[in-house]
This record gives sequence, C-alpha cells and structure tokens, in this order.
Amino acid sequence: MSWIAADWGTSRLRLWHLSAADELLDARSSDEGMGGLAPAEFEPTLRRLAAGWEATTVLTCGMAGAKQGWAEAPYRPLPCPPLGPGLTAAPAEGWTVRLIPGLSQAKPADVMRGEETAIAGWLAANPGWDGVICLPGSHSKWAEVSAGEVVSFRTFLTGELFAAIAGHTVLRHSVGGDEIDAAAFDEALSEALSRPEQLAARLFSIRAEGLLSGLPAAAARGRLSGLLIGAELAAARPWWLGREVALIGAGPLTALYARALAAQAVPTRSAESDPLTLAGLVTAKRLMEGRS
Amino acid sequence: MSWIAADWGTSRLRLWHLSAADELLDARSSDEGMGGLAPAEFEPTLRRLAAGWEATTVLTCGMAGAKQGWAEAPYRPLPCPPLGPGLTAAPAEGWTVRLIPGLSQAKPADVMRGEETAIAGWLAANPGWDGVICLPGSHSKWAEVSAGEVVSFRTFLTGELFAAIAGHTVLRHSVGGDEIDAAAFDEALSEALSRPEQLAARLFSIRAEGLLSGLPAAAARGRLSGLLIGAELAAARPWWLGREVALIGAGPLTALYARALAAQAVPTRSAESDPLTLAGLVTAKRLMEGRS
Repeated sequence: MSWIAADWGTSRLRLWHLSAADELLDARSSDEGMGGLAPAEFEPTLRRLAAGWEATTVLTCGMAGAKQGWAEAPYRPLPCPPLGPGLTAAPAEGWTVRLIPGLSQAKPADVMRGEETAIAGWLAANPGWDGVICLPGSHSKWAEVSAGEVVSFRTFLTGELFAAIAGHTVLRHSVGGDEIDAAAFDEALSEALSRPEQLAARLFSIRAEGLLSGLPAAAARGRLSGLLIGAELAAARPWWLGREVALIGAGPLTALYARALAAQAVPTRSAESDPLTLAGLVTAKRLMEGRS
Repeated sequence: MSWIAADWGTSRLRLWHLSAADELLDARSSDEGMGGLAPAEFEPTLRRLAAGWEATTVLTCGMAGAKQGWAEAPYRPLPCPPLGPGLTAAPAEGWTVRLIPGLSQAKPADVMRGEETAIAGWLAANPGWDGVICLPGSHSKWAEVSAGEVVSFRTFLTGELFAAIAGHTVLRHSVGGDEIDAAAFDEALSEALSRPEQLAARLFSIRAEGLLSGLPAAAARGRLSGLLIGAELAAARPWWLGREVALIGAGPLTALYARALAAQAVPTRSAESDPLTLAGLVTAKRLMEGRS
C-alpha cells in the first residue's frame, strides 16, 4: 500500500506520496500551515491536498502535533534518538494518521517539533555521524548528536525577531525590500560577535543612520540580519568553536549562516531540509512497522 | 498674549494653555500622535484640541518636527545645550507655530526628538546639574549632561522590542495580560546582565517553559521585561556604573528601571516627564523671546 509522508509546519504543509517500497510518486505543498488551522480543519485540508492519491496512511511530523494542532503528541525527553517508538493517532474517518512526537529538554527548557525528523534524515544519510547540527529558521536550532542520540539542543528566536523588528518597529521605515548588502551583513556580524550586549543600541543606530546619512535599505537589512545572526552565533559559540557544523536548511537564510560561520573559519556541510525531512519520515515509517 | 505649549510624540499629543506670564491655564491630551497623521492633518488636529483657547502662538517639541511630521525641523549636532536658537516654522493660517529641533550625534549615529526638551526642563529645575539622565520609553535614551550641554547620548530600542516580541512572535501565547511578576523580572534581569549575549536563546526559553512547565503569564511577562531591560543595562553599563542616574519618565516602566538600577546599587532620582517637558517648553519660549 502506498502512503503519505507529511511535514506540517507552522506556516507550510508539504506532502509526499510514496509507494509501499518508499519510492517517491508525487509531492505537493501549500501554505495551509498549522498556524492558520483549527483542530477540525486538519483532516479536510489533508484530504483536499492529497486528492487523487490512493493512500489512507499518513505519517506526519511538525506542528500538527502541537497543543493547538490536530492532536497533541507528547515530547520525548533528551537524551534520545531523534525518532523512537510511540506515535500519536489523530482522528480521520477511515484513515490511519500518526503524529511523530517532538523532543524536549528540561534544562535549559527547550522544545522542538519537526527538526528531529530532519536530524533523523541526516543520520540516515550519514550513518554513525557525530557532531553539531544547525537548522536556521524562524526558530533556529543547534543540536548536538552523539552515538545516534540528540544529547542537547538550543533554540534561538532569531528569525522571528528579524520579522518582528523589520515589520513592527520604527526600523520598518529603514529595511524595506528583500535585498541584503553583504558587506553591511559582514560588518554587523563582526560587531555583534565582539560586543553582543550592544544589540538594542545598534538596532536603533540603523534607524539613526537612515535619518542622518541615508543608509540604503539593502544595507539596513544586511545590518539587521548581521546583528541578529551575530548575536545568535555569540550565544552559540560553544556549539561551533573548533567544530564542523552540519547546516540543514534552504534558501538565502541558510546561505547567510554558512557565510557567517565561514567568517569564523568554521567548516560547514550544508544539506537541504526538505529531502532530509522526507528521509526522516521514511525512517519513522520503517520503525513504526518494525522494518528498520 | 497666552500661548500653547505642545509635546507632539509618535503616539500622543499633549497641549498646555499658558498665560503670557507662563502660568498654566488648562491642559489637554489625545492619542492623535504624529504616527497616525499626514502632514496636512496637524493643523486641524491642533485647532480641534485647542478649541476655545484664546491663543494663536504654538511652540511644540517632539515628532511633529520629523521628516514625516508637520514640517521637518533639523537636528542640532552634539555637543550643545538641549535647547538653542533656531526654530522651524510650520504652516498654519493666521497662527504662529514653531517646532523645536531635535539633537543628533554623528558617532555612534543617534537622534532624539522631544527628550531634549525634558532634559532642558530637568536642568531648569536643577540649575548647574551635571550627570547621567535615563529616559525610559519605546526608545529609551541615556544622555550625559555636562556644563549645561548634552555631550553624548545613546538610544535603545527596548520598549519597541518588548511590544514587537510580545505581540508578533510565538511569545504572544505566553505573555498575555499586564501583570509583571517581580521575582521573575529580577531573576531575568540578573541573567541578562551577566550573560547578555544569550538573549535570543533565553527568549525562546520563555515559550518552552510555558509549554513544559506552565510558566504563568505574569512570570513570562516579567521574564521578557527583565531580559530586555537587563540587556539595555548591560550595554549602558558605562553610563551608570558608579554614577547617580536621573530617571525621567512615568508609570510602571520607569518604576521597573528604578528597580533594576537599585538592584545594581545605583542611586536614582526620579522625575515625571510631562511636567519637565512643559518646563522645557517654557524655557524654549523664553529663549525664543530673548527673555532667558
């Protein structure tokens, strides 16, 4: 029987249709993320996006398992392998839907939902790998993996901070557009790494330089991005200093992290997150069936 | 002739009606701040709020003089006294309207509009005073005053950061209500002062503790406030270490700054900002007329 693998995040839903032998048959995505859905809307949303696929078994990771999601999947406490036994059933008439639990860390308090599946995909592609994984995003994650287990991780609000500051403070007048000036990014990154405590003052300077000397929007945006990623790297220093970092992500944001880490002489290996998440979902399916 | 003193900020407008001898006759305020007004709307807004007052001379400080305000008043570069000659005229049929210029600092780039008038009011009430002034707010300011001149200042985005994070990130689920738990504030303040670079990670911990251990909203709000004010104090350390600080502001926010500085054994003298701004406007009027 074919089946459906799903990555149901806060803002996006990705579906893959796979054969019984886990070969990719089709893929679809939509912006119907968990953030915009009431619990009763998950089932019809899934049926609509999967229309025409002959599959009634669904395995999903991500925010569909959050408290405000389709059904609440518990967190598995560290240390533990990224995937394990124990899936949560979600209600869907005539279908079998299973949610992958997230991971939790007691101290410092932290949680993840979805990234554990990408980490499992990374380990499936790199058996026996030990080291540090960084997953840039709205909530960037740094995770330490050892002997097949996630032993610690830390989440940074960096991506959401960028959006909140660029959209909802006086800096919105300064950072318009999508372009990032690389030199401004590099300079701000270096400033933030050397004096991370100056963040709130440096943020206002972006506005002041716009008023006093006409700082261009791409430079202002580069500065904001450099300050925030620099602050994250300053806090995450023990994770990357003298290490190789596996960067799991996609697009311009992950490229900025690679650039920032390269500037600290940190070697990185990059991988796209979607294929790794799919590989993790396939691993979870095999675990579920005792095939692993 | 009686006249009108105005403090036209981003979100609020305050008007005072004063006699020719600068005695207070009446006061009014509204939420028609500069942020919600087009340039042509300033004059009718003023006439409506001042209806019935027999005065046609208006002296205003604040964001009415911003580029997007009533008329652009230039910045005066540091070092300089908080008020000086050179006012900008704004168009108003049959009225005399004058805007007080803001102050600018070249390096680090910084600007203020309105706080210079409160600082002038503080100096009018404390002649010959030298020292550090902190003005908490959406854009907190720290200013060094010496021999009647503002010699340097620094703006922190702290208040706007609080609003943007509390309203537009995942923390909005955690920090509802208005209450601030004082113990949570104190603990977060101390954490932020000792390791300010951990800000972005500590912010996400507020959410994680809400999910994992049901952190109450007042504690989450106290934590967020303590982290952000602590980050500001960490960056502003050279301004307050071993000094007395004049705190100019109002309400619960200024009380939090007083509490935070007291925890660092920094003596503070507090003053309400509205009366000081009015005193500064009166000083500016006398300067304008050569009466000072």
